Amino acid sequence: MNQSAPTSDQPTDQTGTLSYEQAGVNYDLIDPLKITAQRAAASTAVHLAGHGFTEVAASRGESAYVVDVGPFYLASIVECLGTKTLVADEMAKLTGKSYYDGIAQDTIAMAINDLITVGATPLVVQAYWAAGGSDWFGDSQRAQALVAGWKRACEVCSVAWGGGETPALAGIVEEGRIDLAASCTGLINPKERLSVGDKLGAGDAIILLASSGIHANGLSLARKLVERLPNGYLTEISPGVTYGEALLAPTVLYSPVTEALWKAGITPHYCANITGHGWRKLLRHPNELTYRIHSVPPVTPVLRFIQAQAKQDDREAYSTLNMGAGFAIFVKAEDAERTVEIARAQGIAAWNAGVVEAGPKQVLIEPLDIAFTNDDLQLR
Amino acid sequence: MNQSAPTSDQPTDQTGTLSYEQAGVNYDLIDPLKITAQRAAASTAVHLAGHGFTEVAASRGESAYVVDVGPFYLASIVECLGTKTLVADEMAKLTGKSYYDGIAQDTIAMAINDLITVGATPLVVQAYWAAGGSDWFGDSQRAQALVAGWKRACEVCSVAWGGGETPALAGIVEEGRIDLAASCTGLINPKERLSVGDKLGAGDAIILLASSGIHANGLSLARKLVERLPNGYLTEISPGVTYGEALLAPTVLYSPVTEALWKAGITPHYCANITGHGWRKLLRHPNELTYRIHSVPPVTPVLRFIQAQAKQDDREAYSTLNMGAGFAIFVKAEDAERTVEIARAQGIAAWNAGVVEAGPKQVLIEPLDIAFTNDDLQLR
Repeated sequence: MNQSAPTSDQPTDQTGTLSYEQAGVNYDLIDPLKITAQRAAASTAVHLAGHGFTEVAASRGESAYVVDVGPFYLASIVECLGTKTLVADEMAKLTGKSYYDGIAQDTIAMAINDLITVGATPLVVQAYWAAGGSDWFGDSQRAQALVAGWKRACEVCSVAWGGGETPALAGIVEEGRIDLAASCTGLINPKERLSVGDKLGAGDAIILLASSGIHANGLSLARKLVERLPNGYLTEISPGVTYGEALLAPTVLYSPVTEALWKAGITPHYCANITGHGWRKLLRHPNELTYRIHSVPPVTPVLRFIQAQAKQDDREAYSTLNMGAGFAIFVKAEDAERTVEIARAQGIAAWNAGVVEAGPKQVLIEPLDIAFTNDDLQLR
Repeated sequence: MNQSAPTSDQPTDQTGTLSYEQAGVNYDLIDPLKITAQRAAASTAVHLAGHGFTEVAASRGESAYVVDVGPFYLASIVECLGTKTLVADEMAKLTGKSYYDGIAQDTIAMAINDLITVGATPLVVQAYWAAGGSDWFGDSQRAQALVAGWKRACEVCSVAWGGGETPALAGIVEEGRIDLAASCTGLINPKERLSVGDKLGAGDAIILLASSGIHANGLSLARKLVERLPNGYLTEISPGVTYGEALLAPTVLYSPVTEALWKAGITPHYCANITGHGWRKLLRHPNELTYRIHSVPPVTPVLRFIQAQAKQDDREAYSTLNMGAGFAIFVKAEDAERTVEIARAQGIAAWNAGVVEAGPKQVLIEPLDIAFTNDDLQLR
């Protein structure tokens, strides 16, 4: 069970530090359900035996669920975009443009970037577009942008768009809004591509891949900050670029990198999609290991701006936002430089940023003197 | 692309006939998007070749998308529950009970009953539970009922619950509401189980499987009718059974029947999940064939009640609601009686209800003197 950032209308201090929790996250209410659901879900794995199959138990708690179907592994997932559409809707009012082509990419990225962490090649994406009423689809500029962006993202990831749902849910989804999600199915083929962390160990290199901005996690915080800005989403954060536009930079699709790595003979030992919980996601795997980061990638301007406006120190910022690194790949040390080159050849900046060491479970971001321990991330 | 029933707030005559269109369906707004999306989706199939695979083109426009991955076919889907939760929420206020165990089954049924139409064995279900805020999950009775019902439905269908999403989407999903969906992945294994209609032909028998009530399609109409009832959802429609409770009877899960058929050596030529568009769904396959129904199953009391209250004639009712038949299986004539017996052995009433004939594309419901022609159903 993954979680998108919940939002609330808690009053906040208009000038002080704004943490993620203050932006409306209340995991205390969701977590008991999540734990019950995880246990119930785990208990259903036995049904696969009746079909001659078994689950890959190590994938429970990972970003995608994996089943051994004999000649290869089957991976599947459903992922929600979250609340990024609220920014797109506000910006559309301010500029008259539609941002739903980028929003489509964001939605697909949420599913694809999780699915590939286990070593899967994404094959089929299904669209889940639940609108607040039929009227949503009547804005043809916006609807066509959503279709065009969805198609283009499928092309980038070489996946087939299988179909989907376009329900109009008046009374459930708010009028004028849309709840976007994507499901994705893929294969881990051949089976040695499986990367659920069993090979992860001391000596591995940590490769970080660049993000394009906030991606689709941390939007609750980003939206809260607008209240503090006299020009709101139209505030310039760098010459000619508004806060709103910068927030809407589409999430990077990382599957071209993982596919290119496979073709080059590199099999990652593990991958982490850096979404909610920021760099604490580097602690995702349950193994007792230390992740020492010696090089920190440049921070994208919109994230630097959010950090400044929210008056967050580096520890808070790196524990919440991707801070310039959207995806981490753990590879054998000897594959590190080639992994960086292969990512760059796909047009994605990448850095050989750290090493895995024996030691207590923690992330040490040395240049910033930050340590996250296991207590900072409880995902399962 | 499938569609759930959109709803609107169009004024309606409080006493006259209430059609599905008057209950708020406006396909004119959704259809242009749907057609554009279908074309864009179809154009992405070429990407599978890069992975060594191909789509089963005949599955485009069917209820699930199918890819040939070599040793077997892969089928996948995402499906929305629709607005049935609005009835559950109203009934919870009136009775103090939670109906989310049944709602969970409904949601899974939406995905499973579509996936099995192509001959797939469902393997993995993912949960999509998008709430209007963290608070939704704080009602532990309701949340636990949702988990328990989800687990039980997985057990009935022998699928593994892989995981899912539990986002809190304040600003997108209405406060106090939840948008429920399920994705499902399965295999068609062995490949001769594929049922996309290529074997469907004159002489085949039409087996209808019983529904439990309204299932999860037609709820917009059912909710509109409440305005006409002095006792609303608490109106008794049969001794001791209220309208609300009857509406909330969970959707029948049909995969135990399709799996039992396979074990008995019966391979359906085609299947149709009777959801939106009622019995017009019998026209789903593009072939030019006549479907002659000689026996009409008993109509469940809640559907008879809706028909009477909405003052619909049989033609309108059968073109909108399942009218007692939730699923149709098309088999060789010689397999007809055994198919009925196998369904009944799974606890699901079934009838050898009609035959497929050469002739113009139409459904003839002889006992009711109703004909639906191709003009009555445009799904692709």
